[in-house]
Amino acid sequence: MAKPHKAGAAREIGRMEAFSDGVFAIAITLPIVAVQAPTIAPGGTLMGAIAQQWPTYLAYGLSFLVIGIYWVHHHFTGKIYARADHGFVLANLLFLATVGFVPFPTRLFAEHLAEPANRGTAAVVYTAALALPTWAWALKWVYARRTHAMDPRLDDAYLDGLTRIYLLTAALMAAAVALSLLDWRLGLGFAALLTLYHLRAPPWPVYEIEEARPHPDAEQT
Amino acid sequence: MAKPHKAGAAREIGRMEAFSDGVFAIAITLPIVAVQAPTIAPGGTLMGAIAQQWPTYLAYGLSFLVIGIYWVHHHFTGKIYARADHGFVLANLLFLATVGFVPFPTRLFAEHLAEPANRGTAAVVYTAALALPTWAWALKWVYARRTHAMDPRLDDAYLDGLTRIYLLTAALMAAAVALSLLDWRLGLGFAALLTLYHLRAPPWPVYEIEEARPHPDAEQT
Amino acid sequence: MAKPHKAGAAREIGRMEAFSDGVFAIAITLPIVAVQAPTIAPGGTLMGAIAQQWPTYLAYGLSFLVIGIYWVHHHFTGKIYARADHGFVLANLLFLATVGFVPFPTRLFAEHLAEPANRGTAAVVYTAALALPTWAWALKWVYARRTHAMDPRLDDAYLDGLTRIYLLTAALMAAAVALSLLDWRLGLGFAALLTLYHLRAPPWPVYEIEEARPHPDAEQT
Amino acid sequence: MAKPHKAGAAREIGRMEAFSDGVFAIAITLPIVAVQAPTIAPGGTLMGAIAQQWPTYLAYGLSFLVIGIYWVHHHFTGKIYARADHGFVLANLLFLATVGFVPFPTRLFAEHLAEPANRGTAAVVYTAALALPTWAWALKWVYARRTHAMDPRLDDAYLDGLTRIYLLTAALMAAAVALSLLDWRLGLGFAALLTLYHLRAPPWPVYEIEEARPHPDAEQT
Repeated sequence: MAKPHKAGAAREIGRMEAFSDGVFAIAITLPIVAVQAPTIAPGGTLMGAIAQQWPTYLAYGLSFLVIGIYWVHHHFTGKIYARADHGFVLANLLFLATVGFVPFPTRLFAEHLAEPANRGTAAVVYTAALALPTWAWALKWVYARRTHAMDPRLDDAYLDGLTRIYLLTAALMAAAVALSLLDWRLGLGFAALLTLYHLRAPPWPVYEIEEARPHPDAEQT
Repeated sequence: MAKPHKAGAAREIGRMEAFSDGVFAIAITLPIVAVQAPTIAPGGTLMGAIAQQWPTYLAYGLSFLVIGIYWVHHHFTGKIYARADHGFVLANLLFLATVGFVPFPTRLFAEHLAEPANRGTAAVVYTAALALPTWAWALKWVYARRTHAMDPRLDDAYLDGLTRIYLLTAALMAAAVALSLLDWRLGLGFAALLTLYHLRAPPWPVYEIEEARPHPDAEQT
Repeated sequence: MAKPHKAGAAREIGRMEAFSDGVFAIAITLPIVAVQAPTIAPGGTLMGAIAQQWPTYLAYGLSFLVIGIYWVHHHFTGKIYARADHGFVLANLLFLATVGFVPFPTRLFAEHLAEPANRGTAAVVYTAALALPTWAWALKWVYARRTHAMDPRLDDAYLDGLTRIYLLTAALMAAAVALSLLDWRLGLGFAALLTLYHLRAPPWPVYEIEEARPHPDAEQT
Repeated sequence: MAKPHKAGAAREIGRMEAFSDGVFAIAITLPIVAVQAPTIAPGGTLMGAIAQQWPTYLAYGLSFLVIGIYWVHHHFTGKIYARADHGFVLANLLFLATVGFVPFPTRLFAEHLAEPANRGTAAVVYTAALALPTWAWALKWVYARRTHAMDPRLDDAYLDGLTRIYLLTAALMAAAVALSLLDWRLGLGFAALLTLYHLRAPPWPVYEIEEARPHPDAEQT
């Protein structure tokens, strides 16, 4: 009998990305498309009814921002990963499940933000929801490094730098969740800062091959 | 240590477009798919109940028209942009957020169009919603020109012409919103005309290289 | 000034298809995903509540069948069309709007099928909804032929055969709608037969080049 | 007249996969995005209201797991199938209809899991819903083998092994459904084990060509 042919089974990154993009697009767009037009309270005005729906708009904006940031980083690592084995696909599915979950606690938080009795609870849940994708992301990254899924031409020091960023983010997010249990304002504020920090562009890839061939012509691959 | 390799970080336009297409497809399709079948009022007929849902059908048609026009232009500029840096991706996300928002004020407008007390408010909100994507579009375009994200073979005079069209549209839309606050019929009518104007095909790209090589054979790239 | 470069403006069929596939995927999947779990009537059983939701399952099945048939033909013509100009893109958007509309009248029909007073009305609306995409399809096809958007290697007689099929289908669907106004059973039955007829595979493309070069080797392009 | 050109009609697997990915992405993401924020019962707390929605989270997790497993296998067979004829496209649509259906019985099951009077019924329906995609999958596979749709370079023994796995799974799922009618715990537990079994990576493709050319250099295609 023939021996297994590993190259044939190496799943293409491209199709996994296309599926992931579909999940991102639905999670980012649906929250506002699914919103119903407001009903006017007796004696009220339409503008008042629209204004009263502010948690909905806030939730849409927050969801878009957070999921958008994750999409940017997911898009970026499409350049970093070179292959996807079975475990990597499962880790990516877990990551997508945490991203698809974001709109729900976001709405929960926005809807109870104005209620002193409930906003603490809503903020803790939202902080945890902001932390979940960073944990799944770190898991996926560590798995990928262990299985050498990254483009082999990438510089090890560059990849080590990304590992530090991702593990540190996941650890700080865990701290933010713990902090939110003591003081939701501090915990959520810290998680928000960490999230907004990732609006920055990820560090540009550095390739090992450049060390061997110092001439810029070598970059034309 | 190796120097950063810029070419490797240049994000592919293709994947950003695929994600954008997903957002467009959801924003354009969901409004009607999410509509519930009408319930018949006591003593009424099904045809009456269906007819009473006219705002729903109007909103679907208007949403499809407006988002469809934006998709056509987004599709068109896929030929114009040659690369996408981090700021461009963020500007595109902002643009998508304004497109995904369109169905909500469209439904609001359609549902209150028959109510004399509310249609003015609904029309102002809808006019503003028609203006938002033109502002995000102009922002994205100006950013892309400043960062030289366009295909370098394109003629500068051609790109300047597009800049004029996009900035003028954004400015006129701002005027339409201001006008709608004085007279919603005039303001909305003006915004509608501006939107419908863009049903026209965008001007065909003009390439600089043609000036250097006047023979038609040069166009076969 | 440089002359316009037509080749650069010819929109790629590929991206229009990707967007269309997104619209198809949402229209075909959403009807069942959006269904709520049934509530049990007092004194009733869960199985009874599930059974009472039969119109929902019927609507899902019918929607999937009809939109699936259109997707198959849309997929098929991806091989026929070679380029898409502005008018073609607009005609395709109109076609997608009619496809995205299908789930709504399908649910309407399924929910009133068991009510003698209403099923006639619902059937007429559903028959019209089955006819709409055939009209938009015929419009798109005729526009594409007039603007020579088809792969120029295709045999004219083959394309004429498709024109006959598409125009005849559109005309017979118009007849089905008219018939449904007289007798909804006959009209809907006729429209259903026409729709199911298109479950058949479309005729395989015939290329002109084969007439000139009769050897099978010529087919390896 | 020219002879039909079969190569031109062979539909590309790629576009069918892109459409399928759209259906998968919607079916896997929508269940949680569509969830409404909980309402607090009089005298209750927000945390209590969130906790009471546990069936919703369970349903999201289960749906994600099951549809994710199917996506992984669907993704995997994108490497196995080499072409798609009309019947294959129809079989794939049937498979997608069963996948898109999964979230509905999953929610039904989760919502009635805590009700002794109803959970048996909900479990039987859920078991059947887990079985449906395995039957459609087996149908599609058998059709593809009969029409020689697989990559011809694949080893026959390898394909026969997959046929055994898929037919056995379909048969055991039928047994699980029958068993669930006698004892829902046993039937559902068996179906769950069969589903979780497919979390394992599918067996790596084996190519015939390796038998002829034993040197590893032959694997570089």
